[in-house]
Amino acid sequence: MKDRRPGPTVRTRVHELRADGERRHEDRLATEEPLEIRLAWPGTAARRVWVTMRTPGHDFELAAGWLVHEGITRGVHGVAYCTDTDLSPEQEFNVVTVTLDGPPLADPGHRHDTFSSGSSACGVCGKDSVASALTVSAAARWPGDLPEPDVVRRLPDALREHQRVFERTGGVHAAGLFTAAGEALVVREDVGRHNAVDKVTGARVLAGASPAEAALVVSGRAGFELVQKALAAGVGALVAVGAPTSLSARLAKEAGLVLYGFTSARRCVRYT
Amino acid sequence: MKDRRPGPTVRTRVHELRADGERRHEDRLATEEPLEIRLAWPGTAARRVWVTMRTPGHDFELAAGWLVHEGITRGVHGVAYCTDTDLSPEQEFNVVTVTLDGPPLADPGHRHDTFSSGSSACGVCGKDSVASALTVSAAARWPGDLPEPDVVRRLPDALREHQRVFERTGGVHAAGLFTAAGEALVVREDVGRHNAVDKVTGARVLAGASPAEAALVVSGRAGFELVQKALAAGVGALVAVGAPTSLSARLAKEAGLVLYGFTSARRCVRYT
Repeated sequence: MKDRRPGPTVRTRVHELRADGERRHEDRLATEEPLEIRLAWPGTAARRVWVTMRTPGHDFELAAGWLVHEGITRGVHGVAYCTDTDLSPEQEFNVVTVTLDGPPLADPGHRHDTFSSGSSACGVCGKDSVASALTVSAAARWPGDLPEPDVVRRLPDALREHQRVFERTGGVHAAGLFTAAGEALVVREDVGRHNAVDKVTGARVLAGASPAEAALVVSGRAGFELVQKALAAGVGALVAVGAPTSLSARLAKEAGLVLYGFTSARRCVRYT
Repeated sequence: MKDRRPGPTVRTRVHELRADGERRHEDRLATEEPLEIRLAWPGTAARRVWVTMRTPGHDFELAAGWLVHEGITRGVHGVAYCTDTDLSPEQEFNVVTVTLDGPPLADPGHRHDTFSSGSSACGVCGKDSVASALTVSAAARWPGDLPEPDVVRRLPDALREHQRVFERTGGVHAAGLFTAAGEALVVREDVGRHNAVDKVTGARVLAGASPAEAALVVSGRAGFELVQKALAAGVGALVAVGAPTSLSARLAKEAGLVLYGFTSARRCVRYT
Protein backbone atom coordinates (compact mmCIF):
# COMPACT_ATOMS: atom_id res chain seq x y z
CA MET A 1 0.00 0.00 0.00
CA LYS A 2 1.36 3.37 -1.00
CA ASP A 3 2.21 5.77 1.84
CA ARG A 4 0.14 8.88 1.20
CA ARG A 5 2.14 10.93 3.66
CA PRO A 6 3.22 14.19 1.98
CA GLY A 7 6.98 14.88 1.80
CA PRO A 8 8.70 18.14 2.78
CA THR A 9 9.22 19.22 -0.84
CA VAL A 10 7.34 18.82 -4.13
CA ARG A 11 8.63 19.00 -7.70
CA THR A 12 7.30 21.69 -9.99
CA ARG A 13 8.00 23.04 -13.48
CA VAL A 14 9.16 26.65 -13.47
CA HIS A 15 9.99 29.33 -16.02
CA GLU A 16 13.12 31.25 -15.09
CA LEU A 17 13.43 34.65 -16.75
CA ARG A 18 16.80 36.38 -16.82
CA ALA A 19 17.79 39.55 -18.63
CA ASP A 20 20.00 37.45 -20.91
CA GLY A 21 17.54 34.67 -21.66
CA GLU A 22 15.06 32.25 -20.22
CA ARG A 23 14.72 28.55 -19.54
CA ARG A 24 12.13 26.10 -18.30
CA HIS A 25 13.27 23.54 -15.78
CA GLU A 26 12.19 21.50 -12.80
CA ASP A 27 12.49 22.95 -9.33
CA ARG A 28 11.44 22.06 -5.80
CA LEU A 29 9.02 23.92 -3.56
CA ALA A 30 8.63 23.52 0.19
CA THR A 31 5.42 21.65 0.90
CA GLU A 32 2.74 23.67 2.70
CA GLU A 33 -0.35 21.86 3.98
CA PRO A 34 -2.77 22.57 6.83
CA LEU A 35 -2.41 20.67 10.11
CA GLU A 36 -5.30 20.46 12.52
CA ILE A 37 -4.41 19.86 16.16
CA ARG A 38 -7.02 18.18 18.35
CA LEU A 39 -6.76 17.86 22.09
CA ALA A 40 -8.24 15.18 24.36
CA TRP A 41 -7.92 14.45 28.07
CA PRO A 42 -9.57 11.90 30.37
CA GLY A 43 -13.33 12.30 30.30
CA THR A 44 -13.44 14.54 27.24
CA ALA A 45 -13.75 13.93 23.51
CA ALA A 46 -11.04 15.25 21.21
CA ARG A 47 -11.72 18.77 19.97
CA ARG A 48 -9.99 21.06 17.49
CA VAL A 49 -7.74 23.63 19.17
CA TRP A 50 -5.75 25.01 16.24
CA VAL A 51 -5.09 24.80 12.53
CA THR A 52 -1.79 25.93 11.08
CA MET A 53 -0.19 25.86 7.64
CA ARG A 54 2.98 23.81 7.98
CA THR A 55 5.59 21.76 6.14
CA PRO A 56 4.70 18.07 6.71
CA GLY A 57 7.18 16.14 8.81
CA HIS A 58 7.56 16.03 12.60
CA ASP A 59 3.84 16.72 12.92
CA PHE A 60 3.59 15.12 16.36
CA GLU A 61 6.42 17.36 17.56
CA LEU A 62 4.72 20.43 16.11
CA ALA A 63 1.49 19.62 17.95
CA ALA A 64 3.18 18.84 21.27
CA GLY A 65 5.48 21.88 21.09
CA TRP A 66 2.67 24.26 20.23
CA LEU A 67 0.67 23.10 23.26
CA VAL A 68 3.67 23.54 25.57
CA HIS A 69 4.36 27.03 24.18
CA GLU A 70 0.72 28.03 24.70
CA GLY A 71 0.98 27.00 28.36
CA ILE A 72 -1.69 24.33 27.82
CA THR A 73 0.50 21.47 29.03
CA ARG A 74 4.07 20.61 30.03
CA GLY A 75 4.00 17.06 28.71
CA VAL A 76 1.77 14.83 26.60
CA HIS A 77 0.43 11.31 27.09
CA GLY A 78 0.39 10.50 23.39
CA VAL A 79 0.03 11.87 19.87
CA ALA A 80 -1.50 10.08 16.88
CA TYR A 81 -2.81 10.83 13.43
CA CYS A 82 -6.58 10.99 13.52
CA THR A 83 -8.34 7.84 12.37
CA ASP A 84 -11.82 9.28 11.75
CA THR A 85 -13.43 7.24 9.02
CA ASP A 86 -14.88 10.41 7.52
CA LEU A 87 -11.44 11.84 6.74
CA SER A 88 -10.46 11.66 3.08
CA PRO A 89 -7.09 10.11 2.15
CA GLU A 90 -5.73 13.63 1.51
CA GLN A 91 -6.71 14.62 5.06
CA GLU A 92 -5.52 11.66 7.07
CA PHE A 93 -1.99 12.93 7.67
CA ASN A 94 -3.21 16.48 8.30
CA VAL A 95 -5.06 15.88 11.57
CA VAL A 96 -3.32 14.88 14.81
CA THR A 97 -4.84 14.22 18.21
CA VAL A 98 -2.81 14.96 21.33
CA THR A 99 -3.87 13.18 24.51
CA LEU A 100 -3.08 14.60 27.93
CA ASP A 101 -2.93 12.74 31.26
CA GLY A 102 -5.21 15.28 32.87
CA PRO A 103 -7.03 18.53 32.17
CA PRO A 104 -5.10 21.32 30.38
CA LEU A 105 -3.21 23.89 32.47
CA ALA A 106 -4.74 26.74 30.45
CA ASP A 107 -7.95 27.10 28.50
CA PRO A 108 -7.09 26.08 24.93
CA GLY A 109 -9.92 28.34 23.73
CA HIS A 110 -8.42 31.51 25.16
CA ARG A 111 -6.74 33.00 22.13
CA HIS A 112 -6.61 36.68 21.28
CA ASP A 113 -7.60 36.17 17.66
CA THR A 114 -10.97 34.57 18.27
CA PHE A 115 -14.31 36.12 17.44
CA SER A 116 -15.87 37.27 20.67
CA SER A 117 -18.04 39.96 22.13
CA GLY A 118 -16.64 43.45 22.20
CA SER A 119 -15.43 43.34 25.76
CA SER A 120 -12.16 45.04 26.45
CA ALA A 121 -11.59 42.83 29.48
CA CYS A 122 -8.72 41.25 27.58
CA GLY A 123 -6.52 44.33 27.41
CA VAL A 124 -4.89 45.12 24.11
CA CYS A 125 -1.64 46.93 24.67
CA GLY A 126 2.02 46.08 24.90
CA LYS A 127 1.94 46.07 28.72
CA ASP A 128 -0.91 43.55 28.80
CA SER A 129 0.67 41.40 26.09
CA VAL A 130 3.87 41.23 28.10
CA ALA A 131 1.99 40.46 31.32
CA SER A 132 -0.01 37.73 29.61
CA ALA A 133 3.11 36.16 28.09
CA LEU A 134 4.83 36.16 31.47
CA THR A 135 2.00 34.16 33.02
CA VAL A 136 2.44 31.26 30.58
CA SER A 137 6.24 31.28 30.66
CA ALA A 138 8.17 28.76 32.72
CA ALA A 139 8.52 29.88 36.31
CA ALA A 140 12.28 29.35 36.43
CA ARG A 141 14.81 30.64 33.93
CA TRP A 142 17.60 28.46 32.48
CA PRO A 143 20.00 27.92 35.40
CA GLY A 144 22.98 26.75 33.38
CA ASP A 145 25.73 28.42 31.35
CA LEU A 146 24.95 30.70 28.43
CA PRO A 147 26.92 30.71 25.18
CA GLU A 148 29.78 33.22 25.04
CA PRO A 149 29.59 35.81 22.20
CA ASP A 150 32.11 33.91 20.06
CA VAL A 151 29.86 30.84 20.29
CA VAL A 152 26.75 32.92 19.57
CA ARG A 153 28.30 34.22 16.33
CA ARG A 154 28.89 30.64 15.14
CA LEU A 155 25.31 29.48 15.79
CA PRO A 156 23.68 30.64 12.50
CA ASP A 157 26.25 28.70 10.47
CA ALA A 158 25.78 25.68 12.73
CA LEU A 159 22.03 25.92 12.17
CA ARG A 160 22.49 26.21 8.42
CA GLU A 161 24.46 22.96 8.33
CA HIS A 162 21.25 21.15 9.33
CA GLN A 163 18.87 22.95 6.96
CA ARG A 164 18.23 20.15 4.47
CA VAL A 165 14.93 21.47 3.10
CA PHE A 166 16.23 25.02 2.77
CA GLU A 167 19.10 23.75 0.63
CA ARG A 168 16.61 22.30 -1.81
CA THR A 169 13.98 25.05 -1.83
CA GLY A 170 15.34 28.27 -0.29
CA GLY A 171 11.85 28.60 1.14
CA VAL A 172 11.79 27.44 4.73
CA HIS A 173 12.81 28.70 8.14
CA ALA A 174 14.74 26.74 10.74
CA ALA A 175 15.06 26.67 14.51
CA GLY A 176 17.48 24.76 16.67
CA LEU A 177 18.26 24.08 20.30
CA PHE A 178 21.94 24.43 21.21
CA THR A 179 24.09 23.88 24.28
CA ALA A 180 26.22 26.66 25.75
CA ALA A 181 29.20 25.15 23.89
CA GLY A 182 27.35 25.46 20.57
CA GLU A 183 26.39 21.82 20.11
CA ALA A 184 23.11 21.26 18.23
CA LEU A 185 20.62 19.08 20.11
CA VAL A 186 17.77 19.32 17.61
CA VAL A 187 17.13 21.35 14.45
CA ARG A 188 13.78 21.54 12.63
CA GLU A 189 12.53 23.29 9.49
CA ASP A 190 9.15 24.60 8.38
CA VAL A 191 7.60 27.14 6.02
CA GLY A 192 6.33 28.81 9.19
CA ARG A 193 9.09 30.15 11.43
CA HIS A 194 6.89 29.72 14.49
CA ASN A 195 6.18 26.11 13.55
CA ALA A 196 9.91 25.34 13.38
CA VAL A 197 10.24 26.47 17.00
CA ASP A 198 7.21 24.41 18.02
CA LYS A 199 8.81 21.34 16.43
CA VAL A 200 12.06 21.87 18.33
CA THR A 201 10.33 22.02 21.71
CA GLY A 202 8.01 19.16 20.75
CA ALA A 203 10.98 16.98 19.78
CA ARG A 204 12.45 17.41 23.25
CA VAL A 205 9.17 16.86 25.06
CA LEU A 206 8.34 13.70 23.07
CA ALA A 207 11.85 12.38 23.76
CA GLY A 208 11.24 12.82 27.48
CA ALA A 209 13.80 15.63 27.67
CA SER A 210 13.38 19.19 28.89
CA PRO A 211 12.93 21.86 26.20
CA ALA A 212 14.98 24.20 28.41
CA GLU A 213 18.57 24.62 27.19
CA ALA A 214 21.17 27.33 26.76
CA ALA A 215 20.11 28.74 23.39
CA LEU A 216 17.26 28.63 20.91
CA VAL A 217 18.43 29.77 17.46
CA VAL A 218 16.05 31.01 14.75
CA SER A 219 16.83 31.70 11.09
CA GLY A 220 14.58 34.76 10.86
CA ARG A 221 13.52 37.67 12.99
CA ALA A 222 12.57 37.55 16.67
CA GLY A 223 9.07 38.93 17.06
CA PHE A 224 6.97 38.89 20.20
CA GLU A 225 5.55 35.41 19.65
CA LEU A 226 8.98 33.84 19.28
CA VAL A 227 10.16 35.37 22.56
CA GLN A 228 6.96 34.06 24.12
CA LYS A 229 7.78 30.54 22.87
CA ALA A 230 11.39 30.80 24.08
CA LEU A 231 10.12 31.76 27.54
CA ALA A 232 7.59 28.94 27.65
CA ALA A 233 10.33 26.48 26.68
CA GLY A 234 12.56 27.91 29.41
CA VAL A 235 15.68 28.52 27.30
CA GLY A 236 18.46 30.84 28.43
CA ALA A 237 18.98 32.84 25.25
CA LEU A 238 17.10 33.48 22.01
CA VAL A 239 19.52 34.00 19.12
CA ALA A 240 17.99 35.42 15.92
CA VAL A 241 19.60 35.93 12.54
CA GLY A 242 17.19 38.83 11.94
CA ALA A 243 15.88 41.78 13.93
CA PRO A 244 13.91 41.82 17.18
CA THR A 245 10.95 44.17 17.65
CA SER A 246 10.16 46.73 20.35
CA LEU A 247 7.80 44.35 22.11
CA SER A 248 10.03 41.28 21.88
CA ALA A 249 12.94 43.21 23.41
CA ARG A 250 10.64 44.49 26.17
CA LEU A 251 9.30 41.02 26.97
CA ALA A 252 12.77 39.45 26.94
CA LYS A 253 14.06 42.14 29.31
CA GLU A 254 11.19 41.75 31.77
CA ALA A 255 11.52 37.97 31.75
CA GLY A 256 15.31 37.87 32.05
CA LEU A 257 15.78 36.15 28.67
CA VAL A 258 19.01 37.01 26.84
CA LEU A 259 18.09 38.22 23.35
CA TYR A 260 20.49 38.44 20.39
CA GLY A 261 19.60 39.80 16.94
CA PHE A 262 21.40 40.35 13.63
CA THR A 263 23.60 37.37 14.47
CA SER A 264 26.24 36.35 11.93
CA ALA A 265 29.83 35.11 11.91
CA ARG A 266 30.86 38.78 11.94
CA ARG A 267 28.76 40.16 14.77
CA CYS A 268 25.83 39.78 17.12
CA VAL A 269 23.77 42.44 18.89
CA ARG A 270 22.52 41.91 22.42
CA TYR A 271 19.26 43.65 23.33
CA THR A 272 19.00 42.71 27.00
CA MET B 1 -1.84 67.43 25.19
CA LYS B 2 0.80 64.93 24.19
CA ASP B 3 -0.12 62.57 21.34
CA ARG B 4 0.22 59.09 22.80
CA ARG B 5 0.13 57.45 19.40
CA PRO B 6 3.06 55.03 19.11
CA GLY B 7 5.53 55.61 16.27
CA PRO B 8 6.83 53.00 13.82
CA THR B 9 10.21 52.73 15.54
CA VAL B 10 11.54 53.00 19.09
CA ARG B 11 15.03 53.80 20.34
CA THR B 12 16.89 51.25 22.37
CA ARG B 13 20.38 50.75 23.83
CA VAL B 14 22.20 47.76 22.37
CA HIS B 15 25.46 45.96 22.92
CA GLU B 16 27.15 45.03 19.65
CA LEU B 17 29.69 42.22 19.95
CA ARG B 18 32.20 41.70 17.15
CA ALA B 19 35.18 39.38 17.05
CA ASP B 20 37.48 42.42 17.15
CA GLY B 21 35.75 44.32 19.92
CA GLU B 22 32.47 45.53 21.27
CA ARG B 23 30.57 48.76 21.69
CA ARG B 24 27.35 50.00 23.26
CA HIS B 25 25.25 52.37 21.21
CA GLU B 26 21.70 53.45 20.48
CA ASP B 27 19.73 51.64 17.82
CA ARG B 28 16.17 51.57 16.53
CA LEU B 29 13.69 48.70 16.67
CA ALA B 30 10.51 48.36 14.65
CA THR B 31 7.54 48.95 16.95
CA GLU B 32 5.32 45.92 17.54
CA GLU B 33 2.01 46.41 19.35
CA PRO B 34 -1.29 44.51 19.28
CA LEU B 35 -4.18 45.89 17.25
CA GLU B 36 -7.73 44.78 17.95
CA ILE B 37 -10.19 45.06 15.07
CA ARG B 38 -13.87 45.43 15.94
CA LEU B 39 -16.67 45.24 13.42
CA ALA B 40 -20.09 46.90 13.52
CA TRP B 41 -22.96 47.11 11.06
CA PRO B 42 -26.49 48.61 11.27
CA GLY B 43 -28.41 47.01 14.10
CA THR B 44 -25.41 45.36 15.78
CA ALA B 45 -22.96 46.42 18.45
CA ALA B 46 -19.26 46.44 17.64
CA ARG B 47 -17.56 43.12 18.38
CA ARG B 48 -13.96 41.94 18.27
CA VAL B 49 -13.13 39.99 15.12
CA TRP B 50 -9.34 39.81 15.22
CA VAL B 51 -6.21 40.79 17.10
CA THR B 52 -2.88 41.03 15.33
CA MET B 53 0.61 42.16 16.29
CA ARG B 54 1.48 45.04 14.00
CA THR B 55 3.68 48.09 13.51
CA PRO B 56 1.57 51.15 14.41
CA GLY B 57 0.72 53.43 11.50
CA HIS B 58 -1.96 53.05 8.82
CA ASP B 59 -4.07 51.16 11.35
CA PHE B 60 -7.35 52.03 9.60
CA GLU B 61 -5.95 50.66 6.36
CA LEU B 62 -4.81 47.48 8.07
CA ALA B 63 -8.29 46.90 9.50
CA ALA B 64 -10.10 47.65 6.23
CA GLY B 65 -7.70 45.60 4.12
CA TRP B 66 -7.84 42.60 6.43
CA LEU B 67 -11.66 42.56 6.23
CA VAL B 68 -11.57 42.76 2.42
CA HIS B 69 -9.00 39.94 2.22
CA GLU B 70 -11.12 37.76 4.49
CA GLY B 71 -14.09 38.21 2.16
CA ILE B 72 -16.04 39.92 4.95
CA THR B 73 -16.67 43.12 2.96
CA ARG B 74 -15.67 44.91 -0.24
CA GLY B 75 -15.88 48.42 1.20
CA VAL B 76 -16.25 50.11 4.56
CA HIS B 77 -18.51 52.88 5.83
CA GLY B 78 -16.00 54.20 8.32
CA VAL B 79 -13.07 53.37 10.61
CA ALA B 80 -12.25 55.02 13.94
CA TYR B 81 -10.12 54.44 17.00
CA CYS B 82 -12.27 53.05 19.77
CA THR B 83 -13.40 55.59 22.35
CA ASP B 84 -14.46 53.22 25.15
CA THR B 85 -13.96 55.02 28.41
CA ASP B 86 -12.60 51.82 29.96
CA LEU B 87 -9.61 51.73 27.62
CA SER B 88 -6.33 52.77 29.22
CA PRO B 89 -4.20 55.46 27.51
CA GLU B 90 -1.84 52.74 26.31
CA GLN B 91 -4.74 50.92 24.65
CA GLU B 92 -6.56 53.76 22.95
CA PHE B 93 -4.61 53.63 19.70
CA ASN B 94 -4.63 49.82 19.65
CA VAL B 95 -8.35 49.27 19.08
CA VAL B 96 -10.16 50.26 15.88
CA THR B 97 -13.80 49.86 14.98
CA VAL B 98 -14.79 49.34 11.35
CA THR B 99 -18.38 50.16 10.43
CA LEU B 100 -20.08 48.56 7.45
CA ASP B 101 -23.13 49.82 5.51
CA GLY B 102 -24.80 46.42 5.82
CA PRO B 103 -24.24 42.93 7.16
CA PRO B 104 -20.89 41.25 6.38
CA LEU B 105 -20.58 39.12 3.23
CA ALA B 106 -18.99 36.28 5.22
CA ASP B 107 -19.20 35.24 8.84
CA PRO B 108 -16.34 37.03 10.60
CA GLY B 109 -16.29 34.21 13.15
CA HIS B 110 -15.49 31.51 10.62
CA ARG B 111 -11.76 31.13 11.02
CA HIS B 112 -9.84 27.86 10.89
CA ASP B 113 -7.82 28.58 13.99
CA THR B 114 -10.69 28.90 16.42
CA PHE B 115 -11.42 26.50 19.24
CA SER B 116 -14.38 24.42 18.18
CA SER B 117 -15.88 20.99 18.48
CA GLY B 118 -13.99 18.18 16.84
CA SER B 119 -16.06 18.10 13.69
CA SER B 120 -14.17 17.46 10.50
CA ALA B 121 -16.88 19.24 8.50
CA CYS B 122 -14.33 21.91 7.77
CA GLY B 123 -11.95 19.77 5.72
CA VAL B 124 -8.28 20.08 6.44
CA CYS B 125 -6.28 19.35 3.33
CA GLY B 126 -4.66 21.29 0.52
CA LYS B 127 -7.61 20.68 -1.80
CA ASP B 128 -10.11 22.09 0.70
CA SER B 129 -7.85 25.03 1.56
CA VAL B 130 -7.62 25.92 -2.12
CA ALA B 131 -11.39 25.52 -2.60
CA SER B 132 -12.09 27.67 0.44
CA ALA B 133 -9.70 30.39 -0.73
CA LEU B 134 -11.30 30.43 -4.18
CA THR B 135 -14.73 31.14 -2.68
CA VAL B 136 -13.55 34.36 -1.01
CA SER B 137 -11.47 35.57 -3.95
CA ALA B 138 -12.73 38.26 -6.30
CA ALA B 139 -14.94 36.78 -9.01
CA ALA B 140 -13.08 38.46 -11.86
CA ARG B 141 -9.34 38.45 -12.42
CA TRP B 142 -7.38 41.60 -13.30
CA PRO B 143 -8.41 42.40 -16.87
CA GLY B 144 -5.56 44.80 -17.70
CA ASP B 145 -1.96 44.44 -18.77
CA LEU B 146 0.57 42.52 -16.68
CA PRO B 147 4.17 43.66 -16.11
CA GLU B 148 6.69 42.27 -18.60
CA PRO B 149 9.58 40.24 -17.08
CA ASP B 150 12.01 43.18 -17.35
CA VAL B 151 9.57 45.27 -15.29
CA VAL B 152 9.04 42.43 -12.80
CA ARG B 153 12.80 42.23 -12.15
CA ARG B 154 12.87 45.95 -11.29
CA LEU B 155 9.98 45.76 -8.79
CA PRO B 156 11.93 44.67 -5.66
CA ASP B 157 14.30 47.63 -6.01
CA ALA B 158 11.32 49.94 -6.60
CA LEU B 159 9.72 48.58 -3.44
CA ARG B 160 12.92 49.03 -1.46
CA GLU B 161 13.05 52.74 -2.38
CA HIS B 162 9.89 53.23 -0.31
CA GLN B 163 10.94 51.14 2.71
CA ARG B 164 11.56 53.93 5.20
CA VAL B 165 11.16 51.86 8.36
CA PHE B 166 13.29 49.02 7.03
CA GLU B 167 16.14 51.47 6.41
CA ARG B 168 16.11 52.39 10.06
CA THR B 169 15.54 48.97 11.64
CA GLY B 170 16.16 46.17 9.12
CA GLY B 171 13.23 44.51 10.83
CA VAL B 172 10.08 45.02 8.78
CA HIS B 173 8.49 43.63 5.67
CA ALA B 174 6.97 45.66 2.86
CA ALA B 175 4.27 45.25 0.25
CA GLY B 176 3.37 47.49 -2.65
CA LEU B 177 0.83 47.80 -5.42
CA PHE B 178 2.33 48.51 -8.84
CA THR B 179 1.02 49.26 -12.32
CA ALA B 180 2.02 47.11 -15.32
CA ALA B 181 4.60 49.79 -16.16
CA GLY B 182 6.19 49.40 -12.71
CA GLU B 183 4.83 52.57 -11.11
CA ALA B 184 4.23 52.32 -7.35
CA LEU B 185 0.68 53.26 -6.30
CA VAL B 186 1.05 52.50 -2.61
CA VAL B 187 3.76 50.89 -0.43
CA ARG B 188 3.31 49.92 3.20
CA GLU B 189 5.55 48.38 5.87
CA ASP B 190 4.92 46.24 8.93
CA VAL B 191 6.66 43.74 11.21
CA GLY B 192 4.08 41.26 9.89
CA ARG B 193 4.37 40.57 6.18
CA HIS B 194 0.66 39.76 5.99
CA ASN B 195 -0.20 43.05 7.70
CA ALA B 196 1.80 45.00 5.10
CA VAL B 197 -0.40 43.49 2.36
CA ASP B 198 -3.56 44.26 4.35
CA LYS B 199 -2.44 47.90 4.63
CA VAL B 200 -1.88 48.16 0.87
CA THR B 201 -5.37 46.93 0.02
CA GLY B 202 -6.88 48.99 2.83
CA ALA B 203 -5.17 52.14 1.55
CA ARG B 204 -6.83 51.67 -1.82
CA VAL B 205 -10.24 50.85 -0.38
CA LEU B 206 -10.23 53.84 1.99
CA ALA B 207 -9.19 56.10 -0.90
CA GLY B 208 -12.22 54.90 -2.86
CA ALA B 209 -10.00 53.07 -5.36
CA SER B 210 -10.02 49.42 -6.36
CA PRO B 211 -7.37 47.21 -4.75
CA ALA B 212 -7.15 45.34 -8.07
CA GLU B 213 -4.06 46.31 -10.09
CA ALA B 214 -1.38 44.69 -12.22
CA ALA B 215 1.03 43.57 -9.52
CA LEU B 216 1.29 43.14 -5.77
CA VAL B 217 4.93 42.99 -4.67
CA VAL B 218 6.05 41.50 -1.33
CA SER B 219 9.49 41.68 0.27
CA GLY B 220 9.40 38.14 1.64
CA ARG B 221 8.13 34.73 0.64
CA ALA B 222 4.75 33.97 -0.95
CA GLY B 223 2.93 31.48 1.26
CA PHE B 224 -0.65 30.34 0.88
CA GLU B 225 -2.16 33.20 2.86
CA LEU B 226 -0.45 35.85 0.73
CA VAL B 227 -1.78 34.28 -2.47
CA GLN B 228 -5.19 34.23 -0.82
CA LYS B 229 -4.94 37.97 -0.11
CA ALA B 230 -3.73 38.71 -3.65
CA LEU B 231 -6.77 36.87 -5.02
CA ALA B 232 -9.19 38.65 -2.71
CA ALA B 233 -7.70 41.98 -3.80
CA GLY B 234 -8.06 40.95 -7.45
CA VAL B 235 -4.51 41.72 -8.58
CA GLY B 236 -3.05 40.27 -11.78
CA ALA B 237 0.32 39.08 -10.48
CA LEU B 238 1.93 38.38 -7.11
CA VAL B 239 5.65 39.14 -7.20
CA ALA B 240 7.68 37.82 -4.25
CA VAL B 241 11.33 38.41 -3.41
CA GLY B 242 11.37 35.02 -1.68
CA ALA B 243 10.07 31.53 -2.41
CA PRO B 244 6.51 30.34 -2.95
CA THR B 245 5.24 27.11 -1.37
CA SER B 246 3.59 24.05 -2.88
CA LEU B 247 0.14 25.22 -1.84
CA SER B 248 0.58 28.85 -2.90
CA ALA B 249 1.68 27.74 -6.38
CA ARG B 250 -1.29 25.37 -6.56
CA LEU B 251 -3.79 28.04 -5.50
CA ALA B 252 -2.32 30.63 -7.88
CA LYS B 253 -2.52 28.18 -10.78
CA GLU B 254 -6.13 27.22 -10.08
CA ALA B 255 -7.17 30.86 -9.72
CA GLY B 256 -5.31 32.15 -12.77
CA LEU B 257 -3.02 34.41 -10.74
CA VAL B 258 0.48 34.95 -12.16
CA LEU B 259 3.01 34.08 -9.45
CA TYR B 260 6.68 35.12 -9.44
CA GLY B 261 9.23 34.09 -6.80
CA PHE B 262 12.94 34.70 -6.17
CA THR B 263 12.58 38.06 -7.90
CA SER B 264 15.66 40.28 -8.13
CA ALA B 265 17.30 42.60 -10.66
CA ARG B 266 19.05 39.51 -12.04
CA ARG B 267 16.17 37.08 -12.46
CA CYS B 268 12.60 36.12 -11.65
CA VAL B 269 10.96 32.69 -11.62
CA ARG B 270 7.39 32.23 -12.83
CA TYR B 271 5.43 29.41 -11.20
CA THR B 272 2.18 29.64 -13.18
